[in-house]
Amino acid sequence: PRKFKMKVEKIFKNIKQIGEDDPRKFWHAFKVGIALTLVSMFYYSRPMYQSFDEQTMWIVLTVLVAFEFTAGATISKSMNREFGTALAGAFGLGAKYLAELSGKEGPDPIILGILIFIVGTLGTFTRFYPHIKKKYDYGTVIFVLTFSLVVVSSYRIEDILQFAQRRITTILIGVSTVMVISMVVHPVWAGEDLVKLVSVNLEKLANSLEGFGSEYFNDSGIKSVRGNKNNVEEFLKSLLSVLGSKANEESLANFAGWEPPHGPFKLEHPWKEYLKIGDLVRKCACHLLVLNGNLNSKSKEPTEFERRTEEACKRMITESSKALKELALSIKTMTQPFSSIIHISNAKNIIDDLKHTLGTSETFFQHDESCVMDFIPVASVMSLLITINECVDEISK
Amino acid sequence: PRKFKMKVEKIFKNIKQIGEDDPRKFWHAFKVGIALTLVSMFYYSRPMYQSFDEQTMWIVLTVLVAFEFTAGATISKSMNREFGTALAGAFGLGAKYLAELSGKEGPDPIILGILIFIVGTLGTFTRFYPHIKKKYDYGTVIFVLTFSLVVVSSYRIEDILQFAQRRITTILIGVSTVMVISMVVHPVWAGEDLVKLVSVNLEKLANSLEGFGSEYFNDSGIKSVRGNKNNVEEFLKSLLSVLGSKANEESLANFAGWEPPHGPFKLEHPWKEYLKIGDLVRKCACHLLVLNGNLNSKSKEPTEFERRTEEACKRMITESSKALKELALSIKTMTQPFSSIIHISNAKNIIDDLKHTLGTSETFFQHDESCVMDFIPVASVMSLLITINECVDEISK
Repeated sequence: PRKFKMKVEKIFKNIKQIGEDDPRKFWHAFKVGIALTLVSMFYYSRPMYQSFDEQTMWIVLTVLVAFEFTAGATISKSMNREFGTALAGAFGLGAKYLAELSGKEGPDPIILGILIFIVGTLGTFTRFYPHIKKKYDYGTVIFVLTFSLVVVSSYRIEDILQFAQRRITTILIGVSTVMVISMVVHPVWAGEDLVKLVSVNLEKLANSLEGFGSEYFNDSGIKSVRGNKNNVEEFLKSLLSVLGSKANEESLANFAGWEPPHGPFKLEHPWKEYLKIGDLVRKCACHLLVLNGNLNSKSKEPTEFERRTEEACKRMITESSKALKELALSIKTMTQPFSSIIHISNAKNIIDDLKHTLGTSETFFQHDESCVMDFIPVASVMSLLITINECVDEISK
Repeated sequence: PRKFKMKVEKIFKNIKQIGEDDPRKFWHAFKVGIALTLVSMFYYSRPMYQSFDEQTMWIVLTVLVAFEFTAGATISKSMNREFGTALAGAFGLGAKYLAELSGKEGPDPIILGILIFIVGTLGTFTRFYPHIKKKYDYGTVIFVLTFSLVVVSSYRIEDILQFAQRRITTILIGVSTVMVISMVVHPVWAGEDLVKLVSVNLEKLANSLEGFGSEYFNDSGIKSVRGNKNNVEEFLKSLLSVLGSKANEESLANFAGWEPPHGPFKLEHPWKEYLKIGDLVRKCACHLLVLNGNLNSKSKEPTEFERRTEEACKRMITESSKALKELALSIKTMTQPFSSIIHISNAKNIIDDLKHTLGTSETFFQHDESCVMDFIPVASVMSLLITINECVDEISK
């Protein structure tokens, strides 16, 4: 029993953690509950729906299946569901008349079976088609599903036209309930999440660059981060999380395209630009990861060369991380980045100076070299970031 | 009309491409078609099912929703669906009796509404809980769904016990059809896909390492790859695809855990080890990506230092890529890697030699340094790979 109690306590702690991390999750659960209750109340109160009990249950099903966390995902699923159903209803009616051509009373079950097989196979294969997989995957499933249902029941139910009509109406009710609730009550916009994700990733880069600096030079002057082993592992983790964010970014950008204009986002917001920035951010994270690998190989006592380059490296880190933070902020607020250009050019100047120093100095050690060399690609990636970011801001304005 | 024709031709070309890339996709579509037709035939032929027309349609729905590409995913969804339904049926009955306690004839709609709200909210929130999200996400949706349906219909349908029973039976029929077909007809095992993915990623690393070598040293002796710009971009692409494979690997490993033992895979195959290898592979890809960034900064004419280290670098590349290929093969065939250890130790020897040379040589240029330095982490990652791979092989044997 004590073990059980501990487990329950752990679960509650986890739940609290989830809620603190993202209170919108509580809201989402609440919204789903509301939508479900509304829909089932509708079922209880309307006597006119007595005639098609089973059909009304489809509303409940629609609400549960179509209600996703972000508004964009919900709209995408709802639209897919509604249009898939409507299209399949029309096709199903056609299939029924085709099967009735044989002349016997009622449709021919063999022809119906063949039709189901063809639609099932083609529909499933269509889902592998990249463009459809990305945007209309769910609609295709619903199409095959509804088509089969209409065709199967056409064998038994007489008034198939009314059946299809009702199905489309019920799903429309479910879908509009879901869409309205997800957009009105504490909406979670995929677009906002995407912007936040990209800018948080940029911040993570800046932080781990700073962390590397304070760790490598045993210097807490760059930032008031206590340099210890845990810290390094944390930075590694955050870099790896940046690297693994591609799939998440892509689905958010996809859903963001479904969302109506809201807040600062216009209808034709360039969501794809964020993906490009994301790719560059991941490349940059790669460089930082390699840079972090140098931490262990640092020699104990600083050599002449190290002493000579330390100052420049530190300044480079400070300028670069400032530029990254500036970029993160400008993406978040969707303004033109101002001072980041200055920081970047500062960093570039330092690199040029450093190269000059290196060219004249005779004694230098391989180790620091690689460290400096690693900085150059980082800086170049950042300058790329800048240019792309500028164009994004121009478009988003 | 000509434009339309071209579009149609393009679509057909794409379809052919999909089929050539992975003929299993054709098979999958075929399997879904077969399952659908079987189930609907079942509906036409059995007169005993006349009594619950609507219920039988749930079989069709189950088939379409639960049939996934890999066997593991199908089994996972089927199990989730069946257990979710069964559990929800039991809870739904309980809810009905609770609502009937009020004493009036029939259950109290307000109590039912409150219950639906509670279950809907709690159920949705549970889906955010990491452990459940990973394995039982779909089961939770089905639970909430079935619970709501049972509760809603309990208000109208008298014999709710029979209703729930039939629902569980129909879904059981659908689920078993799907599971049998997905495991018997041309099965696509998630486990095999996972192994293939990891080993292909290793091969990609080896190829791009070789590609880098032949490009950097303008030498086609390492491999008969024609060094041109397209080639480099291709390697970059394959490295980026390795970096982005994390989500895919994780879902495959998750589904692989649901699959019954088959072929060389025992019941307790260490799928998680593959994820660890995958993480290391991605780290290695990071290093290679940075290495590739050095291609552009190469100076035109070789310096004294470059000439002196070229041979060693080339040998290092050859040994490393051989080791990687060996590892890829050993993962694919699930045998102990033999010669890869030799290759690794060869590479290590070369590195030691090189370090020694560098220590004594006076004139060397920063550029090559960084190249050599980048090799060291690659080699260290590979030695890590080796150790982990050995342990995997020991377990999988």
